[in-house]
Amino acid sequence: MTLKRTFHIESLSAELVEPLQHKINNKTKPLGSLGVLERTALRIGQIQETLTPTLSRPTVLVFAGDHGIATEGVSPYPQEVTRQMVLNFLAGGAAINVFARQHDMELFVIDAGVNGDLPEHPQLLKRKVAPGTKNFLREPAMTPEQCEQAISTGADVARQVRQNGCNILVCGEMGIGNTSAASIILSQLGDFPVENCVGPGAGLANPGVKKKIEILQAAIRNHRIGDNPFQVLTTFGGLEIAMICGAYLQAAQERMIILVDGFISTSALLVASRLYPAVLDYCIFGHQSEEPGHRKMLELLRGEPLLRLNMRLGEGTGAVVAYALVESAVRFLNEMASFESAGVSTAS
Amino acid sequence: MTLKRTFHIESLSAELVEPLQHKINNKTKPLGSLGVLERTALRIGQIQETLTPTLSRPTVLVFAGDHGIATEGVSPYPQEVTRQMVLNFLAGGAAINVFARQHDMELFVIDAGVNGDLPEHPQLLKRKVAPGTKNFLREPAMTPEQCEQAISTGADVARQVRQNGCNILVCGEMGIGNTSAASIILSQLGDFPVENCVGPGAGLANPGVKKKIEILQAAIRNHRIGDNPFQVLTTFGGLEIAMICGAYLQAAQERMIILVDGFISTSALLVASRLYPAVLDYCIFGHQSEEPGHRKMLELLRGEPLLRLNMRLGEGTGAVVAYALVESAVRFLNEMASFESAGVSTAS
Repeated sequence: MTLKRTFHIESLSAELVEPLQHKINNKTKPLGSLGVLERTALRIGQIQETLTPTLSRPTVLVFAGDHGIATEGVSPYPQEVTRQMVLNFLAGGAAINVFARQHDMELFVIDAGVNGDLPEHPQLLKRKVAPGTKNFLREPAMTPEQCEQAISTGADVARQVRQNGCNILVCGEMGIGNTSAASIILSQLGDFPVENCVGPGAGLANPGVKKKIEILQAAIRNHRIGDNPFQVLTTFGGLEIAMICGAYLQAAQERMIILVDGFISTSALLVASRLYPAVLDYCIFGHQSEEPGHRKMLELLRGEPLLRLNMRLGEGTGAVVAYALVESAVRFLNEMASFESAGVSTAS
Repeated sequence: MTLKRTFHIESLSAELVEPLQHKINNKTKPLGSLGVLERTALRIGQIQETLTPTLSRPTVLVFAGDHGIATEGVSPYPQEVTRQMVLNFLAGGAAINVFARQHDMELFVIDAGVNGDLPEHPQLLKRKVAPGTKNFLREPAMTPEQCEQAISTGADVARQVRQNGCNILVCGEMGIGNTSAASIILSQLGDFPVENCVGPGAGLANPGVKKKIEILQAAIRNHRIGDNPFQVLTTFGGLEIAMICGAYLQAAQERMIILVDGFISTSALLVASRLYPAVLDYCIFGHQSEEPGHRKMLELLRGEPLLRLNMRLGEGTGAVVAYALVESAVRFLNEMASFESAGVSTAS
């Protein structure tokens, strides 16, 4: 079982590393004193193959999909909250709306697989593959064709956003039950016992977490599929997760900066990186979620998060809240004076 | 030896904690899922005594002063860099300029005690108390009168900024040698051996750090003054550190939000908090500096930094880079929909 659509993702060249580092080191500040911002600036220069990178039309894509597993009671919220939250996004009242407005980021919501009808809206892209996944405790969440279609759709949306002038992309998500999917993806692709990959999600108390672990253990036993990334995604994933996977792969092919959010989005990146490892070259990690499995994912992917604010909201919020830091990195590289231009003495 | 000027700083009332927490909990997100942003929003609501706080005319004050101890070779940079960097601030080319512009923050530079003349400039406030401190290896850095004057001047500048409509203040600094002053302040007021409070500062290599430790140990032996905060500041501090101390105290009296920067600024806060502990109620900690003593200071003050980005530049940069997070906290509190208003089901 393999992904049919192919992507062409170039690993980053090391050619500009030395001139970028030289430019960074000659800014009027002690050597290395901007820490992670310096490493971020370097990476963005490499992605854009320039000493003067820019950020243009930053965009948030919130992919929404329902999960059959939700009927097993793995979330404290009822499944209808997925659709209700999409309406909240379209009305501008959710956290992701607030933070996207703050940072002048465009926001689109993609119906990847919401269980229910949604109205026409200029910010809503109707790309429903199915009205939610199947319950993976009993059968695969998707057919291979559905998973392929979702990946391809996510890629097409990313390409469209790129054509509109965006060069930095945040993917967020909404889907009641999707921490269960992400936990199994982490377990299967990271080769961890699933009980070490499960957390409270949207707010389960301890007995709920215990029950969630038992359900996920049973699901893994029922399928026994190993670590084929496309098969893991098909069997346990979500339509929104598959679309994010496709969006990330296309974004990397288009040399966009990928600003990664939390546990769910990173599970999509984990799948994407097993298909095309070079996708990671284009990633900046916005934050480390409070959901405990996210830390494991970041370690697997060697991701250094910009923020650790105990956030665990999803929607893309952790990445968008970190956006100003990415902007700071680009700005200091472009705008700061050098020791020579400012007439400042250098260190002995 | 005591500070003559008095401040009137109210501890925050707990009266609004419950209604603020109620408002936060009813936003359309899992309970607690905005983590540190929620605690930040709560604190700002308490400071402003409202459920709908605002940020107005955010302002950065960069206090610059020279240090007599610089002649002992405690920094890799020559003393003239203090003045050169002030000129860089006025020309708009330093890191703090870039980040303040990014966040639409006003920036003023205060000549607290630069060794050298400076031009007239609309962003420069000439408040020089002396052309640098004395070398505290041999004699007290300041006279008590100079220290009193510097504190009072810092307070007056903060009051002026408040009168201009600012309700959130960042204090930054520039002063070759000032990590030495901050290290001794931490050592004396935190009761740590000074060798545990010293780091590379602007970039000393290991032999330089060792020499710096020996100089600071000798200075402490030469004065033997204990933990009287005003006396510690007078004996080892800097004119810029004393002005920041005064600015913080006045800002708290005026119920401004204090967004705290790194090692040097926090040493001023440490002094201020020993004079008036309630000043801490008004503080949000922008970042944890890479300079190792800063972590100790934050632990002493029970400060939870928003960022840990391995930055160690000073000037106020860590706080200003964190500003967007403070704005995110205020915005979600004001702008997000509640479960009821958005028609979203709550958790079971």
